[in-house]
Amino acid sequence: MESNIIFLPIALAILGLVFMYIKMTWVRKQNPGSEKMQQISKAIKEGALAFLDAEYRILVVFVIVASVALFGISYMVPATSWMIVPAFVIGAFFSALAGNIGMRIATDANTRTAEAAKTSLPQALKVSFGGGTVMGLGVAGLAVLGLSLLFLFFLGQFMSQDGSFYDNMTMVLEALAGFSLGAESIALFARVGGGIYTKAADVGADLVGKVEAGIPEDDPRNPATIADNVGDNVGDVAGMGADLFGSYVATVLAAMVLGNYLIKDMSATTQFTDAFNNMGPILLPLVIAGVGVLASILGTFLVNITSNDAREPQVQKALDTGNWAAIGLTWVASWFLIKWMLPMQMDMTFFGEGVKSIPSRHVFYAATIGLAVGALISMVTAYYTSLGKKPVLNIVKNSSTGAATNIIAGLAVGMKSTFASVILFAAAIFGSYTLAGFYGVALAASAMMATTAMQLAIDAFGPIADNAGGVAEMSELDPEVRERTDILDSVGNTTAAVGKGFAIASAALTALALFAAYVTFTGIDGINIFKADVLAMLFVGGMIPVVFSALAMQSVGKAAMEMVQEVRRQFREIPGILEGTGKPEYAKCVDISTQAALREMLLPGLITIITPIIIGFLFGAEPLGGYMAGVCVSGVMWAIFQNNAGGAWDNAKKSFEAGVEINGKMEYKGSEAHKAAVTGDTVGDPFKDTSGPSMNILIKLTCLVGLVIAPILGHHSEINSVAGNNVEVEMVVENDFAKATVNYSVIEDGIVSDEIKEFEGTEAEVNEAIKVFESTLKIDENRQVIINEVIIEKI
Amino acid sequence: MESNIIFLPIALAILGLVFMYIKMTWVRKQNPGSEKMQQISKAIKEGALAFLDAEYRILVVFVIVASVALFGISYMVPATSWMIVPAFVIGAFFSALAGNIGMRIATDANTRTAEAAKTSLPQALKVSFGGGTVMGLGVAGLAVLGLSLLFLFFLGQFMSQDGSFYDNMTMVLEALAGFSLGAESIALFARVGGGIYTKAADVGADLVGKVEAGIPEDDPRNPATIADNVGDNVGDVAGMGADLFGSYVATVLAAMVLGNYLIKDMSATTQFTDAFNNMGPILLPLVIAGVGVLASILGTFLVNITSNDAREPQVQKALDTGNWAAIGLTWVASWFLIKWMLPMQMDMTFFGEGVKSIPSRHVFYAATIGLAVGALISMVTAYYTSLGKKPVLNIVKNSSTGAATNIIAGLAVGMKSTFASVILFAAAIFGSYTLAGFYGVALAASAMMATTAMQLAIDAFGPIADNAGGVAEMSELDPEVRERTDILDSVGNTTAAVGKGFAIASAALTALALFAAYVTFTGIDGINIFKADVLAMLFVGGMIPVVFSALAMQSVGKAAMEMVQEVRRQFREIPGILEGTGKPEYAKCVDISTQAALREMLLPGLITIITPIIIGFLFGAEPLGGYMAGVCVSGVMWAIFQNNAGGAWDNAKKSFEAGVEINGKMEYKGSEAHKAAVTGDTVGDPFKDTSGPSMNILIKLTCLVGLVIAPILGHHSEINSVAGNNVEVEMVVENDFAKATVNYSVIEDGIVSDEIKEFEGTEAEVNEAIKVFESTLKIDENRQVIINEVIIEKI
Repeated sequence: MESNIIFLPIALAILGLVFMYIKMTWVRKQNPGSEKMQQISKAIKEGALAFLDAEYRILVVFVIVASVALFGISYMVPATSWMIVPAFVIGAFFSALAGNIGMRIATDANTRTAEAAKTSLPQALKVSFGGGTVMGLGVAGLAVLGLSLLFLFFLGQFMSQDGSFYDNMTMVLEALAGFSLGAESIALFARVGGGIYTKAADVGADLVGKVEAGIPEDDPRNPATIADNVGDNVGDVAGMGADLFGSYVATVLAAMVLGNYLIKDMSATTQFTDAFNNMGPILLPLVIAGVGVLASILGTFLVNITSNDAREPQVQKALDTGNWAAIGLTWVASWFLIKWMLPMQMDMTFFGEGVKSIPSRHVFYAATIGLAVGALISMVTAYYTSLGKKPVLNIVKNSSTGAATNIIAGLAVGMKSTFASVILFAAAIFGSYTLAGFYGVALAASAMMATTAMQLAIDAFGPIADNAGGVAEMSELDPEVRERTDILDSVGNTTAAVGKGFAIASAALTALALFAAYVTFTGIDGINIFKADVLAMLFVGGMIPVVFSALAMQSVGKAAMEMVQEVRRQFREIPGILEGTGKPEYAKCVDISTQAALREMLLPGLITIITPIIIGFLFGAEPLGGYMAGVCVSGVMWAIFQNNAGGAWDNAKKSFEAGVEINGKMEYKGSEAHKAAVTGDTVGDPFKDTSGPSMNILIKLTCLVGLVIAPILGHHSEINSVAGNNVEVEMVVENDFAKATVNYSVIEDGIVSDEIKEFEGTEAEVNEAIKVFESTLKIDENRQVIINEVIIEKI
Repeated sequence: MESNIIFLPIALAILGLVFMYIKMTWVRKQNPGSEKMQQISKAIKEGALAFLDAEYRILVVFVIVASVALFGISYMVPATSWMIVPAFVIGAFFSALAGNIGMRIATDANTRTAEAAKTSLPQALKVSFGGGTVMGLGVAGLAVLGLSLLFLFFLGQFMSQDGSFYDNMTMVLEALAGFSLGAESIALFARVGGGIYTKAADVGADLVGKVEAGIPEDDPRNPATIADNVGDNVGDVAGMGADLFGSYVATVLAAMVLGNYLIKDMSATTQFTDAFNNMGPILLPLVIAGVGVLASILGTFLVNITSNDAREPQVQKALDTGNWAAIGLTWVASWFLIKWMLPMQMDMTFFGEGVKSIPSRHVFYAATIGLAVGALISMVTAYYTSLGKKPVLNIVKNSSTGAATNIIAGLAVGMKSTFASVILFAAAIFGSYTLAGFYGVALAASAMMATTAMQLAIDAFGPIADNAGGVAEMSELDPEVRERTDILDSVGNTTAAVGKGFAIASAALTALALFAAYVTFTGIDGINIFKADVLAMLFVGGMIPVVFSALAMQSVGKAAMEMVQEVRRQFREIPGILEGTGKPEYAKCVDISTQAALREMLLPGLITIITPIIIGFLFGAEPLGGYMAGVCVSGVMWAIFQNNAGGAWDNAKKSFEAGVEINGKMEYKGSEAHKAAVTGDTVGDPFKDTSGPSMNILIKLTCLVGLVIAPILGHHSEINSVAGNNVEVEMVVENDFAKATVNYSVIEDGIVSDEIKEFEGTEAEVNEAIKVFESTLKIDENRQVIINEVIIEKI
C-alpha cells in the first residue's frame, strides 16, 4: 500500500470527476423552463463561449511564445528538463478546461434554477448549488489528477538518472513547476480579462440604464443586459475557477518542493528512507489534496434546506454546515495522514538557528494554524463587508451627506480591514514557521486549500443564482421567483466576499511557500534588505501591485465609457426601444465588452510575467527575492483593501433596499443618500471584481516565474560573486573543497574532555556544517562546551 | 580654520535667523489694511494660536511621559547618556517654535498681502513670499543652530571619555538622536492634528455652504469660514513647517551617524586623521546644511516679478528661478566642500562585498543624484497633478459620466503615479549606494534637503495667498484684489503638490539613511527577510501606513460631520444669517475643529511611536528592521498615491472654472460634470492634506524610534542568540576573544610565495576581518592567491 500511495490521490481525483459528471447530468436533466427563458439562457451562454473562444485564440499565441522561452531556459540550465514545456502546455490546457467546464454548467444551471424557483426555494438552492458543485469538483479533480499523473510520469523519467535523490527530485519538481506556471498564466488572463469584462458591462449597463433611463436592473430593454449577465459568468465563474485552480496547484507544488528540501536536511547524516518510496514528505501534500476532494464531496451532501419559507440566514447556515463539515473532515484526516506519512522526528534546518529536531505532530499543528487562520480571516472579511455590521452601517450613515463622504468612509473601511487580516496572517507565518519551518508554512497553506472544491461550490452558486434572477426578470416571470433567487443572490454576495478573503490568505501563504522554494532553488543564503540593490527592488516590487490595480481600474473605466456610448446610441437610434417594442442589439454590447477585455488584459499580464525576468537577469537572485517580497507585501495590502472596500460599498447600497435609519429618519431606495451609496458601489465594482482579486494571481505568478528561472539565477549570482570570467569560475569551483577540524572541550559535572570533529565538502558546506555544529552545541544546557580551535584547510 | 569648522554652520544659521528677523520686521511694517480686514485677520490669528495653545498643552504631557521613558532607556543602556532627555525636550521645543514663528508671520502676512494686492500683483507676491521666507529661514536656521550647538556641547561631554573615538562619537550621536526624535514627535502631532483640523473645517464648510446653501467659498455668512482659514494656517503652515524641520534634522543626523561609521571603516588599518579634528565626514552634512541656508537667502532675492499684468506662468517662473538658483549654488558649493572636507580616497565596507576604496568625488556624484532625483520626482508630481496635462484632463473627461467615474479615474491617476516616482527612487538608492555606500545615500538626502529654507518659502507663500483671498472676500474688497490673490493661490496649489513630492522623496531617502544607521547601531549583520519573524514583521510594517491613513481619513470624516451639524444648526437657529443681517458664531466652529483634531491625532500618533518599541522588545533587532522596511515601502506607495490623487482631483475641479471641453461640449462651473468633480475634490482633500503628508513623518519617526532603542536591541538580540541566562552571557562575552591565522600562497608571474596573516579580537571581529581580507585578495587581478589554511583559536 505505502509504496503505491501516489495512486490514492489519483483515485480520489477520478472519484471527484465521476461525481462531478453525475451531478452535471442531474443538473442538465432539470427543466430548463419556457422557450423565452431558454432563449435568454442561450444568449448568455453563447456570449460567454464567444468570449472564451476569443480569449483562447490570444492565449494560444501566448502559450506558444512562452513555450519557446521555456525551452530556451531548459536548454541553458542543466537542472531544468525540456519536459517543463509540455508540463506548461498541459497546465495551461487544464486551467482553461476547468474554467470552461465551470462556465458551461453555470450557463446551463441559471435557467434551470429560475425554473426550479417557481416550485420552491429548496429546489432552487439544490440546482444552483449543484451547478457550483460541478465547478468545484471539476477544478479540484483536474488539479489533483494533473499534478499526480505528471509527477508519476516525471518520477519515471528522472529518478533513475545518475546523481543524488535530491538532485533528481529537484529536476522532477522543476518540470512540475511548468504545470503550475501554465495554470497560473491562464488564470492571470482569465481573471483580469474576465474582471474587466464583467465590470465594464455592469458599470456601463447601470450608468445608462438605472441612472439615466431609470429602468430596473436586468431589464430586457437595456441593450447591455445580456453582456452584464455574460460578465457574471466569465468573471465570477471562469475567472474565479482558473484563479483557484492556479492557487491549488501552486500550493501543492510549493509544499512538494519544500518536502524535498526536508528530505535533504534529514539525509545530512544518514540517508533518509521511508515506506513511501522514501518520499513521504513530498507525497503528503498531494494525498491531503486528494482527501480534501473526498471531504468536499461528503460536505456537499449536507447543503440543503427543507422549508420553503427559509430566508438568508437558513441558506447561509446550510452552506456553512457543508463547509465546516468538509474542513473538519480534512482536519481530522490530516492528523492521521501526517502521523502515517512523516517520520516521528525530523531534522530541519532553521535559517540562522541551525538544525532542530521536529516531531511530526508539529506539522499537524502548522496545518491547524492554516485552517484556523483561513477561517478567522474569512470571519474578519465577513465582519467588514456584511449587512448590519458596524463598518457597513458607518458607510450608510456617511451616505446622508453625499457621495464624497460615502467614498471616504468606504475607503477607510477597506484600509482599516487590513489590520486584523495582516496581524492574523503574520501570526500564521510566524506560528507555522516556528512549529515546522517553511514546510510548516507550506502545509498550512495546503490544509487551507484542501477543501477548494467545497469553497468553489459555495462561491460559484452565487453568480448562478444572480443569473437566474436575470433570466427571471428578462422573461418576466412571477415576482415570487425573483424574490427567491434574490435570497440566494444575497447569500451569494456574502460568500463571494468571504471567498475573496480566503483566496487572498491562501494566495499569500502559497506565495511564501514558493518564496522559500525559490531561495532553496537559487542556493542563496537569504535575502538581505540591507543590501542597496535588494532594497531598491523591494520598493519596485511594492509599486507593481499599485500600478497593476491602476491599469485594471482604468481599463474598466475605458471599457465602461465605450459601453455607455453604445447604449446611449441604441436608446437614441432604435425606435421604440424604451417602450419595449424595438429590439435592442445585445450582441453589439457583448462584442464591446469582449474586445475591451481582451485588449486591456495584455499589458498588466505582461508586466506581471516579464518584470521578474528582467530583474532576475539584470540584478541577480537576491534582488529578485527582494522584488518578490515587495510584490507580496504590497499585493496583500491592496488586495484586502480593494476587496473589502468594494464588498462594504456593495452592501451599504443594498442596505437601502430594506430601508435604513439615518439620524432618526428612514431612508429608502431612490433617496439622495441611496444615490450616494450607488456611486460608492460603482467605485467599488472594479475594486472588488477586477483589480482586487487579480492581486492573488499577481503575487503567485511573480513567485512562480521566479521559481522557474531560479536555477539560472543561482548560476548567475555565483559568477557575480566571484567576479571573474568563466575560466576562473571553473577553477574556483573545482578547487573549492575544504576540510575543517574543530577541537573542542566538553565540561560535564566538572569533568573536562577534549574532543575533535572533522568536516569535509565544499568550502560553503564546511562553513555551514561548522555553524550547524556550533548551534547544536549551544542548545544543550546541561553541559558547557568550549571550542578551542577551528582549522579550515583547502584540499 | 579647519579645526573650528563647526562654527561655520553655527554662523550661517545665525545669519539665516538674522535675515529672517529683518524680513519679519519688513512684513509687519506693511499696511495691514482696513479695520474690517484687520478684524478678520485677528480672528484667524486668534483661532490658530488657540489651537496651538491647546495642542501644546497636550504635547507637554506627551513630552514629559516620553522623557521619563527615554531616561529609563538611557539608564539601561551604557551607550546612551541621560543627556538624550534634554536633547529630546530641546528638539520638541525648537520644532514647536519653528511652527509657531511660521504661523504668526503667516497670519500677519495674509491681510497685508490682500492690502498689497490692491496696489499691484508684484507687491502682493513680495509680501506673501516675504512671509514664506520668514517661515523657511526660521525652520532651517533653528534646525542647523540646534543641531550644531548640541553637537558641540556633546562633543565636550563625551569625546574626552575613555574608549575609542568611534564609541565616544556613537554616544554623542545617540544623544543627538534625542533632538531629532523630539522634533519628529512634535511634527507628527502637528501634521496629523493640523491635517485633521484643516480638512474638517474645509469639508464641513463646503458641504453645507457651497453645496446646500449655495453661497460661495469664504463667504462671511458661513459660520465655518474662519475655521476654514485657520485650518490653512495650522495645517499647511505649522504642520508643513514642523514636518520639514523634522526631515531636515533627521537627514543631517543620519548622515552624521554614517560619517562616524565611515571613520570606523577607515580606521580599520590605521587610525583615521584629518584637519577637521578627525571628523570631516561627520561635520560635512552640517556644513552643507549651513551653506544651503545661505544659498536659499541668495535665491530669495531672485523671486520677483515686475509686470502687473503677470499671470500664473510668470509667477511660477519667478519662484522657479529662485529655487533653481539655490539648488545650483548648493550643488556647486558641495563640490568644493566634499573635496575639502573628505579624504581623497576612503575605505568603505560594502555589505557582502568587502572593503572598497572610494574617491571623494563619488560622494559628490551621490549628492548630485540626490538633487537630480529630487528635481525629477517633483517634475513627475507636477505632471500628474497639473492643469492641462493628460492625467488631470482624463479625470475631467470622466466627470461627464458622474462622480463614480471621476473617482475611479482619480484613484487610477494616483496609483499610476507611483510608477515613475518609485523607479526614480529605486534608482537613487541603487546609484548613490553603488557610488559611495550608505554614506552616499545619506549625502544624497542631505543635498536634497539642503535648500529646505527655499522650498519652504515657496510652499508657505501659497496658504498665505489663499488666506489673503479669504480676507479679501470676507471684507468685500474689489474683485480685482481677489483675482490677483487667486493667481498667487493657483501657483501655490502647484508648488504645494510639488513640495509634497519633494517631501516624500526626501523623507524616504532619510528613512533609508536612518535604516542604515539603525543596522550599524544594533550591530546585526543585515536584515534577512528569509527568516520567518522578519518576514512576518515586514507584513505588519506594510499594514501600518494603510491603517494610519484610514484612521486619519476617518477622523476627518467624523470631524466634518460634526462641523456640518453645527453649521446647519446655525443656519436654522440664527435669524437673518443667510441674509447677512445675523452674525454667525465663528468661534463655535473653530472650537469643533480644535477639539476634533486634538482628540483624533492621539491614536495614530501613539501607534506610530509604540508599535516599533513593542516589536523591538518582543522580537528583537532584525524583525524590527523588517518592520521598518515594511513601513517605508508601503508608506512611500501610499504617500505618493494619496498626494497625487488628491492634487489631481483638486485641479480637475479647478479646470471647470475656466471651462473645459468634454466630448465637444464646453462645461463650466455649476454643470453636472463640475458637481462630479467637486465630489472627487472632497474625497481628495483628506488624501492630500491629512493622510498623504502624514506618511512622511510616519516613515521617519518609525526609523528614528528604532534608532533610539537600537542599542538596547543590539544587546537583546545578543542574549537571544546565545539563548542562555545572564550569567552565561557574561561568561561568553568575556571569553569571546579569538586569534586567527591565515596561511596563504601568492602566485605572481609563476613564482609562488607562502605568507601568513594574523588577526586578533572578538570572534565576530576576527571572522569579519577574515572576510574583508579574503575579499581584498580577490579584487586584485594580476596575481593569484590561494588560501591554504585558516586557524581560529579561542584566547
